[in-house]
Amino acid sequence: MPKPPLPAELEEFLAQPNPSVIASLRPDGSPHSTATWYLWENGRVLVNMDEGRKRLAYLRRDPRVSITVVGDGDWYHHVTLTGRVAELDEDALDDIDRISRHYTGQPYSQRDRRRVSAWIEVESWHSWAVNRPWASAA
Amino acid sequence: MPKPPLPAELEEFLAQPNPSVIASLRPDGSPHSTATWYLWENGRVLVNMDEGRKRLAYLRRDPRVSITVVGDGDWYHHVTLTGRVAELDEDALDDIDRISRHYTGQPYSQRDRRRVSAWIEVESWHSWAVNRPWASAA
Repeated sequence: MPKPPLPAELEEFLAQPNPSVIASLRPDGSPHSTATWYLWENGRVLVNMDEGRKRLAYLRRDPRVSITVVGDGDWYHHVTLTGRVAELDEDALDDIDRISRHYTGQPYSQRDRRRVSAWIEVESWHSWAVNRPWASAA
Repeated sequence: MPKPPLPAELEEFLAQPNPSVIASLRPDGSPHSTATWYLWENGRVLVNMDEGRKRLAYLRRDPRVSITVVGDGDWYHHVTLTGRVAELDEDALDDIDRISRHYTGQPYSQRDRRRVSAWIEVESWHSWAVNRPWASAA
């Protein structure tokens, strides 16, 4: 799989408020996946979790993740980013507000729970457009 | 996470031609994810791959998977199925035709490659509707 940086076309795609699914690892090594909001910022992926999420414990234990981003309304275009959580911000209500505004136009509604951010460094990526690879390495 | 069977409402959701992302394990134990077509048949998940897909080699090596299905046009409803590949069918052009008809109304266009089916037995699941769990155990 190609390494970063990504082609400009894929950077533009990732900058949209697209659906995504993040895969992490349970303690027994099995894959866990769930849908998530994300932000693509400065070549890294930002995701943000409620302090009580099991996924957060998984990321603390093993930082390796894969995130597949699909086009909103056109899921036949998709980009997968593979990497690892490089940094956790343990008190990041500001990040979930920024993410929520990106997706909904509004700050995040729930204010009484601690939110944790994970910054993901991308190590490799692949992309697909309908039935063929989408864009090539930069 | 609850065990099968799934509530009827989630079964109906899974029967639609929804976008999905499947997570499997690379030989180094890191998560791999990619978007995929799937069929929900008799309580199992069917996915089908070109014989040359790396993902197929991953599933042969370690059958543990997680698949997150999001609503087509409403990805704030999603269901994640966790389980393992219980059976591979090594020559399954008929399956990809059935899957392709489900998503596109047409049989699969490429006829000159061997297609392999993987049947996934579901061990547990979780579901989400907007910002809360969706449906409860049957």
